[in-house]
Amino acid sequence: MSEPLSPVVILDKPQLADNIGAVARVMANFGLSELRLVSPRDGWPQDRAWAAASGADWVLEGIRVFDSVAEAIADLTTVFATTARPRETRMPVRTPRESARLLYDDAASGLKVGLLFGGERAGLETTDIALTAGIVTIPIDPRHHSLNLAQAVAINAYEWRTLILDAPPPKFREGAPPASNALLLGMYEHLEAELDAGGFFHPPEKKPSMSQNLRVMLGRAAFSEQEVATFRGVIHALAKGRGRVLEKLAAMKSSPAGGGGPRSGGGGAEG
Amino acid sequence: MSEPLSPVVILDKPQLADNIGAVARVMANFGLSELRLVSPRDGWPQDRAWAAASGADWVLEGIRVFDSVAEAIADLTTVFATTARPRETRMPVRTPRESARLLYDDAASGLKVGLLFGGERAGLETTDIALTAGIVTIPIDPRHHSLNLAQAVAINAYEWRTLILDAPPPKFREGAPPASNALLLGMYEHLEAELDAGGFFHPPEKKPSMSQNLRVMLGRAAFSEQEVATFRGVIHALAKGRGRVLEKLAAMKSSPAGGGGPRSGGGGAEG
Repeated sequence: MSEPLSPVVILDKPQLADNIGAVARVMANFGLSELRLVSPRDGWPQDRAWAAASGADWVLEGIRVFDSVAEAIADLTTVFATTARPRETRMPVRTPRESARLLYDDAASGLKVGLLFGGERAGLETTDIALTAGIVTIPIDPRHHSLNLAQAVAINAYEWRTLILDAPPPKFREGAPPASNALLLGMYEHLEAELDAGGFFHPPEKKPSMSQNLRVMLGRAAFSEQEVATFRGVIHALAKGRGRVLEKLAAMKSSPAGGGGPRSGGGGAEG
Repeated sequence: MSEPLSPVVILDKPQLADNIGAVARVMANFGLSELRLVSPRDGWPQDRAWAAASGADWVLEGIRVFDSVAEAIADLTTVFATTARPRETRMPVRTPRESARLLYDDAASGLKVGLLFGGERAGLETTDIALTAGIVTIPIDPRHHSLNLAQAVAINAYEWRTLILDAPPPKFREGAPPASNALLLGMYEHLEAELDAGGFFHPPEKKPSMSQNLRVMLGRAAFSEQEVATFRGVIHALAKGRGRVLEKLAAMKSSPAGGGGPRSGGGGAEG
């Protein structure tokens, strides 16, 4: 299936060119491209919008300007109006997630859909809201409800894009899969043998439960084959000094001259 | 049930005061309140942030400044790093929705959680990402991937708030909660010091990347406080023999009679 046409964004009476640019930028971030303005306060185009768009020039260049919301949404079918939850309305009020789903379904059927946003100060007029298929309310904390215009577009555009990307990202980067259990078991046994040698399992009757706890905690890391090798290197590096020095110690003891024999004389203390 | 503590937001090396203000504003929109800065480029506080915060003054006034990401997240448990999907990593990569759910569950269990964001240009350093519990990637259109910092915070904060409002039954962690990042960092440093002593980091210039790989692979296991103690016991047990035997060896060498002195004579080779 080809990707459905993404929603048209309509800004009613936007005031600041910076905000128009920021809206274009975030639309591009989430794969939206068609932007319409209704009666922008300072006219159109305005240079400051390009500075704020951070390279989303094609969105700005495609902008069309209209005199009324009615004209701006005339060729669209399902349009939702993003606004704070109104005091009294008989219109459906939906979350951004619910409305994205409805827009997606309609767009997938070949319909052209849209999202309408009010200006920075005035918001949307009731008569314009009434032209739409319903209200989208972003779940703002009522203690601080002044949401930036571009943020309001971002939340809706983000919900759209999560629907477009049906495949969730894999938990791990493609690349190294977890190691086989055989390799893990070898690693555990290596660790436990060295720990045994170091007197870690104390008292001895606790060894089974202590070993199991170690296996559980390390197992959660889901080491790859390479990481198993790395960890075995860690075990080896931690334990090897002990082994080598013990060998030397044994050699010293068995040599008749005590510490003065040639086999032990060459080695200084290691790192 | 009381509402779980909302995530702490940490900005690493933010450049523009405007952006810090915009982040504070959108945090307030979605009910987040604790903001931390790591080495802000132009120092802190800065007037322009207040202008951009649009009244979210309490967030700005509560800001704490740190010198490193490690210090800024030391008292937190689960922290996710918001960053573009990295080319190659074995860390878990999640959507904002998935990570919000995990943060919510941990916060509902009484843990203090966080979201880490990189600066405007540089993003996050791999060594800092390695300190976190995983990566959050916002589903950006690859054709226009420059997402504004406040927008990145907005998407994550919005997902958090959606969960709070839906008030799903939190999934309590089975068993012990994860250890704080301060405890994990201490464990990593302990391991690395012993590995250094054992000559593990070879060649030496590879030490940073080798250490980081170890941190990532062990970090995935999300050790509990008890498990950190256990693992430090493991490190100690593996390394201690070396240390003790070396001490004995040094004592033998310094005693005039070589191997026959009383200080070294009593001890056989250990287990």
